[in-house]
Amino acid sequence: MKLLILQEKLKKGLGIVERISSKSLTLPILNNILISAEKNFLNLAATDLEIGINLWTLTQIKREGKITIPSRLFSNFINLLPNKKISLEVKNDNLFIECENYKTQIKGLNAEEFPIIPKITDGDTVSVEISSFCKSLGQIADIAVLSSARPEISGVYFLFQKDLITMAATDSFRLGEKKIFLKNNSSLEKEYSLILPQKTAKEIVNIFNEKQGELKMYFSPNQVMFEYPMEETTHAEVQIISRLIEGEYPNYQEIIPKKYTTQLVLNKDEFLNQIKTASLFSGRINEVKIKADPEKNKIEIFSQSSEIGEYESSVSGKISGEPVEISFNHRFLLDGLLSIKTPEIILELNKETGPGVLKAVGDDTYIYVVMPIKAT
Amino acid sequence: MKLLILQEKLKKGLGIVERISSKSLTLPILNNILISAEKNFLNLAATDLEIGINLWTLTQIKREGKITIPSRLFSNFINLLPNKKISLEVKNDNLFIECENYKTQIKGLNAEEFPIIPKITDGDTVSVEISSFCKSLGQIADIAVLSSARPEISGVYFLFQKDLITMAATDSFRLGEKKIFLKNNSSLEKEYSLILPQKTAKEIVNIFNEKQGELKMYFSPNQVMFEYPMEETTHAEVQIISRLIEGEYPNYQEIIPKKYTTQLVLNKDEFLNQIKTASLFSGRINEVKIKADPEKNKIEIFSQSSEIGEYESSVSGKISGEPVEISFNHRFLLDGLLSIKTPEIILELNKETGPGVLKAVGDDTYIYVVMPIKAT
Repeated sequence: MKLLILQEKLKKGLGIVERISSKSLTLPILNNILISAEKNFLNLAATDLEIGINLWTLTQIKREGKITIPSRLFSNFINLLPNKKISLEVKNDNLFIECENYKTQIKGLNAEEFPIIPKITDGDTVSVEISSFCKSLGQIADIAVLSSARPEISGVYFLFQKDLITMAATDSFRLGEKKIFLKNNSSLEKEYSLILPQKTAKEIVNIFNEKQGELKMYFSPNQVMFEYPMEETTHAEVQIISRLIEGEYPNYQEIIPKKYTTQLVLNKDEFLNQIKTASLFSGRINEVKIKADPEKNKIEIFSQSSEIGEYESSVSGKISGEPVEISFNHRFLLDGLLSIKTPEIILELNKETGPGVLKAVGDDTYIYVVMPIKAT
Repeated sequence: MKLLILQEKLKKGLGIVERISSKSLTLPILNNILISAEKNFLNLAATDLEIGINLWTLTQIKREGKITIPSRLFSNFINLLPNKKISLEVKNDNLFIECENYKTQIKGLNAEEFPIIPKITDGDTVSVEISSFCKSLGQIADIAVLSSARPEISGVYFLFQKDLITMAATDSFRLGEKKIFLKNNSSLEKEYSLILPQKTAKEIVNIFNEKQGELKMYFSPNQVMFEYPMEETTHAEVQIISRLIEGEYPNYQEIIPKKYTTQLVLNKDEFLNQIKTASLFSGRINEVKIKADPEKNKIEIFSQSSEIGEYESSVSGKISGEPVEISFNHRFLLDGLLSIKTPEIILELNKETGPGVLKAVGDDTYIYVVMPIKAT
């Protein structure tokens, strides 16, 4: 293998692919990145056996071939080079790298030992606008939780319908649900549902967060593939394939309240700041209490701990329905508030013991359900 | 105790004093901050029994008194409040805090149990321009190393002379020395030397880094006190008192080479970047090799490890004296380069085994001596 590539281009590619390579002690080749040159493309690939990534970038290939080398070292080294032409050449299982006044060789492992990353080439596909997809997934991906007792909730649930994608995640204390309406008529003839591992969901958000254009998804019974087509600036294409979590996702719709007994409309930042401040005084179970009375125009917030002291504050807002006193874990409330980007929020409560629902004023596509701490 | 103070002012004061309070399990009151109101001043104090800090700030005192409360909690809470007037009041060993729509009480501990922070009121003093003092101390404070075998080198050595302060620090692999020339005639009638604990040195740099004006030092046989007088904007004064390290500082002047066999003049950033890059390929003893020949105009840099591969690069520079090949621990070389702020540096070498000396071109006040890795 011998090729020439601009430092900037290689650095960008490695920045993406390197994320997926694992730190495996049992299978050291998974720490490596597979570099191959074929036709006019440099192909970078990595896998942790759950997720696999392939990136192609157009460049000047002098001789085809391939090698695997440690991904972290390679990426750190390339990052420190000047933005000039880099020559990569394989000789005797070593990668020789030259760039201006730098000359190195890195010991590699034979490319034949690298696991094959599967592809999905047929079956149904759907395309989504990449930035809104990532933003939506980012709102809920953190809620899922690694659970060996209930592996289903270790991932993000997706339901693909004709013109709608619904995503949900829960850790059994709270739940986030987000809907994306598809603009073009999707080519899906039937519904698909799947559970994407949390790690894949987070990597998708990280890798494609600031990209523009369309992300294409390919479905198969046990896997899903994300394809981000040729970028104009770098002539690069990325494919990420992930295994899916088996099992049935809990019927979460059941726990989303259809009505409420009290509704609060609040300024998000003000409420957020007060919950954060109250959290300093809350005890071991992270309890903060909210008190709302429609006769007053303010919502009161309390917390206390026998060791630290007592806290109380109030925030103005619109209150309708019944008076209520309810306690939440401040962490769960804060996570929900932070996942909403609008200046005003709605908090719907169902007496002291029913789940609370956070919504963004002016955005019906997202809800966050949070269980209260029951009074003892 | 009862007083009124602006949030901004209290926040600033706590930001400084809180740094010194410790996380002591054996003496929990050291986690607290002592708050006292006397005449027109709020006094905040903290100590870890090695360093003590006292800060006074002018404010509206309604009733004198004092209390101690957990410093981290108090500071975190005050930081989250709006920049409005805060009322602090002590009742039954609790501190009641009110600010706009916030109302809290924090459990305190009796102020009588708080250790007394000593003061130095007589003896010799010297004044230095605070920002250049902090910048200088910052250049060398990190070099000192906690050593129970050689407690002397756990601190920064200071020599005060009529119009000169010399500071030095070493970990026995490298040494930094910095001189500050005093503008005004100092009032010192005799020389003083002392060893300041590294923790104090670092806190002084952190606390006063961005201040302007004069820092006054008071000497006593076992302690030194730093006083930063009344700031115009906040009407605040800070005193920090620290114990000194006993013992005799090593006669480090002996190891600073008075001459050299090879001299290199180099662009700092270029050299720094190449050493950093070479470090990726260096083996377990962090070795990078430098090769310079006055017949060429470039300095070559090598590193290699049997597991990773090989690296070589070159940087142009002026070379005078004998040809040389010398190896350094890249961490020590990088630390030295990072402590120099000028664009060009001088590296003076003494054959393969003598210490190397880094200097800033255009700044004679600083030198960094680093021992080579001897060829085996």
